[in-house]
Amino acid sequence: MPSTIVTFLSDFGAQDWFVGVVHGIVHELAPSAAVVDLNHLIPPANVVRGAFILEAAAPDFPPGSVHLAVVDPGVGTERRALAVRARGAFFVGPDNGLLEWALAARDAEVHALAEERWFRRPVSRTFHGRDVFAPVAAHLARGEPIESFGPRITDPVRLAAAPPRREGDALVGRVVFIDRFGNALTNLTAELLDGAFAGPRDGLRVGLLGREVNGLARSYGDAPVGTLVAVLGSSGRLEIAQVGGDAAVRLGIGEGDPVTVRPIAG
Amino acid sequence: MPSTIVTFLSDFGAQDWFVGVVHGIVHELAPSAAVVDLNHLIPPANVVRGAFILEAAAPDFPPGSVHLAVVDPGVGTERRALAVRARGAFFVGPDNGLLEWALAARDAEVHALAEERWFRRPVSRTFHGRDVFAPVAAHLARGEPIESFGPRITDPVRLAAAPPRREGDALVGRVVFIDRFGNALTNLTAELLDGAFAGPRDGLRVGLLGREVNGLARSYGDAPVGTLVAVLGSSGRLEIAQVGGDAAVRLGIGEGDPVTVRPIAG
Amino acid sequence: MPSTIVTFLSDFGAQDWFVGVVHGIVHELAPSAAVVDLNHLIPPANVVRGAFILEAAAPDFPPGSVHLAVVDPGVGTERRALAVRARGAFFVGPDNGLLEWALAARDAEVHALAEERWFRRPVSRTFHGRDVFAPVAAHLARGEPIESFGPRITDPVRLAAAPPRREGDALVGRVVFIDRFGNALTNLTAELLDGAFAGPRDGLRVGLLGREVNGLARSYGDAPVGTLVAVLGSSGRLEIAQVGGDAAVRLGIGEGDPVTVRPIAG
Repeated sequence: MPSTIVTFLSDFGAQDWFVGVVHGIVHELAPSAAVVDLNHLIPPANVVRGAFILEAAAPDFPPGSVHLAVVDPGVGTERRALAVRARGAFFVGPDNGLLEWALAARDAEVHALAEERWFRRPVSRTFHGRDVFAPVAAHLARGEPIESFGPRITDPVRLAAAPPRREGDALVGRVVFIDRFGNALTNLTAELLDGAFAGPRDGLRVGLLGREVNGLARSYGDAPVGTLVAVLGSSGRLEIAQVGGDAAVRLGIGEGDPVTVRPIAG
Repeated sequence: MPSTIVTFLSDFGAQDWFVGVVHGIVHELAPSAAVVDLNHLIPPANVVRGAFILEAAAPDFPPGSVHLAVVDPGVGTERRALAVRARGAFFVGPDNGLLEWALAARDAEVHALAEERWFRRPVSRTFHGRDVFAPVAAHLARGEPIESFGPRITDPVRLAAAPPRREGDALVGRVVFIDRFGNALTNLTAELLDGAFAGPRDGLRVGLLGREVNGLARSYGDAPVGTLVAVLGSSGRLEIAQVGGDAAVRLGIGEGDPVTVRPIAG
Repeated sequence: MPSTIVTFLSDFGAQDWFVGVVHGIVHELAPSAAVVDLNHLIPPANVVRGAFILEAAAPDFPPGSVHLAVVDPGVGTERRALAVRARGAFFVGPDNGLLEWALAARDAEVHALAEERWFRRPVSRTFHGRDVFAPVAAHLARGEPIESFGPRITDPVRLAAAPPRREGDALVGRVVFIDRFGNALTNLTAELLDGAFAGPRDGLRVGLLGREVNGLARSYGDAPVGTLVAVLGSSGRLEIAQVGGDAAVRLGIGEGDPVTVRPIAG
């Protein structure tokens, strides 16, 4: 029997013991599950960043995986807790927009966590990662039907959308993440580019902070060292990178900076 | 058969390869055990910090877990190595106070690691985490009786205690840890507060660095953003937190700062 | 059946989701393997540092382990990808010198990864850790013969060697790594010292940055606090350490600094 994967994303950092305790709960309740850390350095309470990382990483996991996500500034208040079935996988976390990628799916089935018999008792007011979310994720990994955890709801909290927009012949998006290597990831996906522009990708010009890049490179190393290139990265997003260098440091790119794509003038 | 959990805490950091090697030893000797990292960012040689993290985290793991802890400035000297059975679990580490929470238990059974047949050979003088502690933890996880590892002893090294004290109608403790979110954890436990004060917790006033907080909040979000609150946290300790903020940065709280609890004047 | 260990080293850092995705691929394809992180804080593109960490850590893992290593500035270019059988283990990574320790073995058998049926499809141009190296490592862990992945080659890229050299009665090496505790690890191995000097190690004098240490200590704590000592460390290399302190900070030691060993004048 293949073991179910439980991924785990949080803003818990590494200086405490919170991540380890959540691993322990999952191992205790679902011994055959494999727990995989996605990222625990989400800035405290930064739900938008957590939602982005989850969206970028989750598609690479096999069907049936359980994605446990805890960025939860409202812990202990009246905010709801959710389990979502969407895109062939399960998602568990607070009802604050963190699970946006799951909620945005056409097939999303959203349940409020109401059945306290699945929780760790007593439930603390400050650590639902341990007492609520981890036990529910573990029981989902064991095959418990999602209906068992609480009633279906239709009004989960959603993140405000800020999708790319057309401006004349251009598509204007923005930088959404700077990765470890200084590559600037945008919200311009391959799908959006293909929908907006008919011609080959070699015929596109990418603009950022007054710089322009003609054509899309095939890889980070596909030009002389120091060259600025635009690449469709591994999660299907347009990225601006520097060959052999750190584009974000070189150009001073920050998250939110606008990125423009238009056809090279014919 | 549920797999045994082996937790692992150290001051090894993340820039070397020491943590991975210890994982490898445990997986090799106890393939069905699940190794869970508690924390590897204990400041080098800071036994007191390591002992605190272990005390905070260990109660959340299931009975029979093995807690491997290596903060070991005396490695290679004559300091002893220990295996302890206490509080329904096992603890393995150097005899320098790191295992204080286990040693303080009424039911603690302490053994010196003397039977070299369990060690990795040859035993280096500088990496007992790999050569002594990890193999013993793995064999405990496999069910080897603790008696096999060496004779029982009654004089383990203990940490100097600095418990909270009464001052008139007040109980005076101190900050023992600043967590990732800037919450200041104290050594004032729910048990100590219940023993010292008869009335409801709403009737208590918490003082720290000239600031006062009336009553205990139910959660971090149980007041307007920016408010300073006192909370009984997930490990049963009084914490000072700021709603939606970082209390330690806001007030300049440091570990060791005194915290006073007294009844609100009637 | 003991589970195979797959170690994983990269320059991916902790702020992204790349490490977790690779774990997911290995768990999906080789559910009974145990994935052990060696180090993900290799400075971006620093192949030499990655090769050193792999050489230091790999000998501590059991025979049959699979060592997955991804420091890959040339991803997506024409650089080859390799699987190597050497020293009783397997190694998977880019053909850029990262696997130098495996390649330097007399028994090294080197294969170019050419059989695309083992890859994740489609293969991205920017994340071969996910699409090429992790799947191959997983299939090796499942017992797939190394011949299946591609033809044997004899011209892998090698790192430039800079071995210690004799100067009169002295052996001159250099600092190759500063560890978490400020210990300065050198490329002077126990084997080299034994080959160069006939007498007992107590009769050796170690020189570094104008300081001299007489004799080799048995452990980091084998002298009064503050003393500078030379020690044969846990990976068999001469190290310079300060008892109870940080030798690198104290002396300003940097990687590349020359270290001289000679007999104490008779």
